Amino acid sequence: MRNPLADKVVQLKPSGIRKFFDIVSEMKDAISLGVGEPDFDTPWHVRKEGIDSLEKGRTTYTSNAGLKELKMEIAKYINRTQGLTYDHNGEVLVTVGGSEAIDMGLRAMLNPGDEVLIPQPSYVSYEPCTILAGGVPVIIDLKAENEFRLTAKELRDAITEKTKVLVLPFPNNPTGAIMERSDLEAIAEVILEKDIFVISDEIYSELSYKEKHVSIASLPGMQERTILINGFSKAFAMTGWRLGYACGPKAIIQQMTKIHQFAIMCAPTTSQYAAIKALKDGEPDVVMMREEYNRRRTYLMKTFQEMGLDCFEPYGAFYVFPCIKEFGITSDEFAVRFLEEEKVAVVPGTAFGDCGEGFLRISYAYSMEHLQEAMGRMKRFVEKLRAQKQ
Amino acid sequence: MRNPLADKVVQLKPSGIRKFFDIVSEMKDAISLGVGEPDFDTPWHVRKEGIDSLEKGRTTYTSNAGLKELKMEIAKYINRTQGLTYDHNGEVLVTVGGSEAIDMGLRAMLNPGDEVLIPQPSYVSYEPCTILAGGVPVIIDLKAENEFRLTAKELRDAITEKTKVLVLPFPNNPTGAIMERSDLEAIAEVILEKDIFVISDEIYSELSYKEKHVSIASLPGMQERTILINGFSKAFAMTGWRLGYACGPKAIIQQMTKIHQFAIMCAPTTSQYAAIKALKDGEPDVVMMREEYNRRRTYLMKTFQEMGLDCFEPYGAFYVFPCIKEFGITSDEFAVRFLEEEKVAVVPGTAFGDCGEGFLRISYAYSMEHLQEAMGRMKRFVEKLRAQKQ
Repeated sequence: MRNPLADKVVQLKPSGIRKFFDIVSEMKDAISLGVGEPDFDTPWHVRKEGIDSLEKGRTTYTSNAGLKELKMEIAKYINRTQGLTYDHNGEVLVTVGGSEAIDMGLRAMLNPGDEVLIPQPSYVSYEPCTILAGGVPVIIDLKAENEFRLTAKELRDAITEKTKVLVLPFPNNPTGAIMERSDLEAIAEVILEKDIFVISDEIYSELSYKEKHVSIASLPGMQERTILINGFSKAFAMTGWRLGYACGPKAIIQQMTKIHQFAIMCAPTTSQYAAIKALKDGEPDVVMMREEYNRRRTYLMKTFQEMGLDCFEPYGAFYVFPCIKEFGITSDEFAVRFLEEEKVAVVPGTAFGDCGEGFLRISYAYSMEHLQEAMGRMKRFVEKLRAQKQ
Repeated sequence: MRNPLADKVVQLKPSGIRKFFDIVSEMKDAISLGVGEPDFDTPWHVRKEGIDSLEKGRTTYTSNAGLKELKMEIAKYINRTQGLTYDHNGEVLVTVGGSEAIDMGLRAMLNPGDEVLIPQPSYVSYEPCTILAGGVPVIIDLKAENEFRLTAKELRDAITEKTKVLVLPFPNNPTGAIMERSDLEAIAEVILEKDIFVISDEIYSELSYKEKHVSIASLPGMQERTILINGFSKAFAMTGWRLGYACGPKAIIQQMTKIHQFAIMCAPTTSQYAAIKALKDGEPDVVMMREEYNRRRTYLMKTFQEMGLDCFEPYGAFYVFPCIKEFGITSDEFAVRFLEEEKVAVVPGTAFGDCGEGFLRISYAYSMEHLQEAMGRMKRFVEKLRAQKQ
């Protein structure tokens, strides 16, 4: 029998995130700092709305782009948070999480050989989805000295004749980095000059601990060349509902909707009803969770400082990204030994790009008790490594 | 600003199914025979399971390929209905409806230029998903004289050096055609000889009104070269839950799972819990719905006979596919005039391929009262057309 597989798919590396989880789940007393999803349940009133819709028998397809009321609430939400105006009818597409929106955006825009700029460390999907859509990923290595922000110079240096799209992943997973208005203004100038487009993955937008998140789409001239991607997973603790959205110029959203219609049909109906409720009444829940994440973030930063562990202060998402270069071992070695010797799982920075070498992603989507236990083990491990080095 | 769009995406025609629905929804007294989803609510005990999972706060991601218990139940279901053995761990992928499984299957298998054989009339996604995955769709026109089954000769004639995959869409949407064991045996011989692969879309498998549905994967030598696609939408009236699955050789499912992990993450969690219940206890519901569909199917066939309307007897899905060539107008003209003059929406056969010209897709996913009203209008319309022809 001949080979059934597509060459370019076989060549894709699977995500490096889950490796340690699989070990953790089978190791007694092991604890994790690895997950990328909220530790909160979806707020009850949002779940209740999903339950009500099931009781009423709302179990059929919705229209391809999503329920009209949901698209309207999304447009209103983006308007009140970013001051942007999107027409719910044609400029908003409801997707299966932010993940599908990224995939659809790249598929709708890339011709073979088009280059996509992907700042790393960043979420694991951008590079494979670019390759699958026929594009060529061009990695921009972000630097700790810039707090892992993308600079105008880095962007300009990476652009070629073939560059079509910049993926902008802020607030960032795994670094926790944010891009503030002035950072965005600097890169927007390059984007406009070079006439490229932006896929702005703002799934962590509600988890910003400094100033309010600014979308690059809200800068002059940028809305018409940006696909703004967001969703319900992180802000509303709704990962399992698989619901996200893309807002953008009608011409792009129309093509994304066409692919979505053929490949997905529509996002899950129950989730769409629940999401309407989340946008209407979920703001207090978002605030409560953000405050709790911030408390944990502050605790981790303080603890790292006490340990003498080098870590820039991240103002977004629910990750910290400490540097472990002082120990003279790789991220992977650190993670393996930390798991074996102290039974704590963390994700090596290299899971998010080669330039993540020397760093760890530590999630604070865990209770304070859990974090305190984990930090106790980390302190002991770090001291052991230092003692062994001497 | 330059053009943001991918050429091959722009060239895809949007689905022709929805055009008439949009008119219907705004036309007073208009009724539809157009939908492609069950008119039943999801069985209560299945919805109840979804509700329970929400009450328990099961709102996080599942593993990428789906909940272990669901994958095990799927493997058991395929075993008891088809006698096939699939390893839940590695040979089963839970997807966002059958739609995603089709897209993932094509993306996992196609290299640029690979030809995909698509028998038409058939569901609207196969051709665009093939193009999006870099393949070349090769259409096989099925014939009314063969009751729209795929024959070994038609298959053999369409195969070239570049043929990699045959999409096998039976029981068929829109014709209602089925492929019985002997039909499948004839084409399996060609498939084995020519060393090609099969994506078998069996989403309507439970809606077979003659003998039990036979999967081509169950024929000798075929399991290792078939992706069997099925789901919960049609059999269990669960369209809005967006839940389907693919079973196949480990090497293929592994690659599909990799793409799924990056582009989708996992199927909706609530739906997965409900689907476990559907597979465990939903058989009586399936039987009840099938019997009701069959009653309607028999009624429509009898009514067409009384009208003198030419229609082969379809034994699958919930569609009939009458021929309207006697009226000397196109399917589209018939559908437009039928909607304007009698306010009944049907889908022209051409929405499912050029060879659907001269036919209409009429769905019987409607109550008997609804069908009786619609058939009254159809009788009047057909008589008017005949009178005008004279």
